[in-house]
Amino acid sequence: MREITKVEIITRPEKLEELKEAMNAIGVTGMTVTQVYGCGLSKGHKEVYRGKEVTVNLLPKVKIEIVVCEVPVEKVLDAAKKACRTGNIGDGKIFVYSIANAVRIRTGEEGDIAIMDPKDTTK
Amino acid sequence: MREITKVEIITRPEKLEELKEAMNAIGVTGMTVTQVYGCGLSKGHKEVYRGKEVTVNLLPKVKIEIVVCEVPVEKVLDAAKKACRTGNIGDGKIFVYSIANAVRIRTGEEGDIAIMDPKDTTK
Amino acid sequence: MREITKVEIITRPEKLEELKEAMNAIGVTGMTVTQVYGCGLSKGHKEVYRGKEVTVNLLPKVKIEIVVCEVPVEKVLDAAKKACRTGNIGDGKIFVYSIANAVRIRTGEEGDIAIMDPKDTTK
Ligand SMILES: Nc1ncnc2c1ncn2[C@@H]1O[C@H](COP(=O)(O)OP(=O)(O)OP(=O)(O)O)[C@@H](O)[C@H]1O
Ligand SMILES: Nc1ncnc2c1ncn2[C@@H]1O[C@H](COP(=O)(O)OP(=O)(O)OP(=O)(O)O)[C@@H](O)[C@H]1O
Ligand SMILES: Nc1ncnc2c1ncn2[C@@H]1O[C@H](COP(=O)(O)OP(=O)(O)OP(=O)(O)O)[C@@H](O)[C@H]1O
Ligand SMILES: [Mg+2]
Ligand SMILES: [Mg+2]
Ligand SMILES: [Mg+2]
Repeated sequence: MREITKVEIITRPEKLEELKEAMNAIGVTGMTVTQVYGCGLSKGHKEVYRGKEVTVNLLPKVKIEIVVCEVPVEKVLDAAKKACRTGNIGDGKIFVYSIANAVRIRTGEEGDIAIMDPKDTTK
Repeated sequence: MREITKVEIITRPEKLEELKEAMNAIGVTGMTVTQVYGCGLSKGHKEVYRGKEVTVNLLPKVKIEIVVCEVPVEKVLDAAKKACRTGNIGDGKIFVYSIANAVRIRTGEEGDIAIMDPKDTTK
Repeated sequence: MREITKVEIITRPEKLEELKEAMNAIGVTGMTVTQVYGCGLSKGHKEVYRGKEVTVNLLPKVKIEIVVCEVPVEKVLDAAKKACRTGNIGDGKIFVYSIANAVRIRTGEEGDIAIMDPKDTTK
């Protein structure tokens, strides 16, 4: 079984659509999106929210989880950085995790094949 | 310390109750549920949502996280597949992660014992 | 690259503020908060919710994710236990995961430096 990896992107909600298109373009087969609140806690620098400078507290963010195997992690990171970057504080973070196993519930398939597109696995 | 594992199930919201009962039946001691949005991004196949075929976009899904140690991971996967499977696209995915440590906040206990039922650990 | 670790705390929503202050005090540079529902499934013991004893079902909880590198994991666990503990069932759990990589989207920095405070990395 090839390595399965989760890329977790925490970024501005307004970047979701652009990120989705960027992932689609590189062949990502799925993603899971959660509304979260993010908190900077950083020593003195401020994030601008709705035109006002705020001492970074709990601001609405979006968490996007993308599990990949065929698509290289580096490609996902590059596309996500390009889609989410504004250059300002609050652009967000990406965390990468290794995954022990994956299952496609519809078919019961396990491992790398579980996250591949069925069109590609039946070739 | 025995191995601690997280099983993360992303499936249809209407399957939550059935899944909860299935987990209870095999001795799972807890679970955490998050409302999420899922996105298929698959090449051309469509998921049916509320009787309409939609090009898979952001559909409401539910994420269930279950951390186990005593209960074998295979048993959790089998029960989850049985509970969540309809045979149609959109049934969802299961991802398995290995966990480095666990803590029961009430008592401070760490490791496998932190996720065991107190009734079993005080025997 | 030094080890990067995620500490995931699932606890009572009313403990969020205290936890945030405790994390700030030990130098944690960020956190991500998700509203979740928690489920005990435990054999017979009950959790008190809004003054009523309930057979533990889906109760509102809060999940706090904290990724650290410089701040020792043990320090995070100790501060979280102190902040979230009431001594009653339902205080919650902490799960610890190892992380393969981290990226600061604003700058593209990867690894431990991605979660350090910029004030410290530019010294
Ligand atoms: N150490 C961390 N652990 C967990 N989540 C974090 C952490 N740091 C940041 N986050 C999440 O990422 C969001 C963006 O964080 P923050 O603004 O500090 O990062 P940033 O945009 O990279 O800022 P900077 O560019 O100054 O580092 C936060 O609101 C929070 O949800
Ligand atoms: N690669 C992935 N990374 C993260 N989340 C995913 C991924 N693939 C699927 N998901 C999540 O699982 C949900 C169900 O996905 P999808 O319908 O593609 O899987 P499926 O039901 O197994 O479909 P199929 O049976 O065609 O593979 C999605 O809405 C999404 O939340
Ligand atoms: N095994 C588990 N897997 C995933 N989430 C869990 C698990 N056990 C507990 N949780 C989460 O933690 C919350 C608190 O759980 P619970 O009340 O059982 O733990 P606790 O406060 O440590 O109780 P006790 O002190 O009796 O062990 C739950 O509502 C759930 O969200
Ligand atoms: Mg910051
Ligand atoms: Mg699909
Ligand atoms: Mg309990």
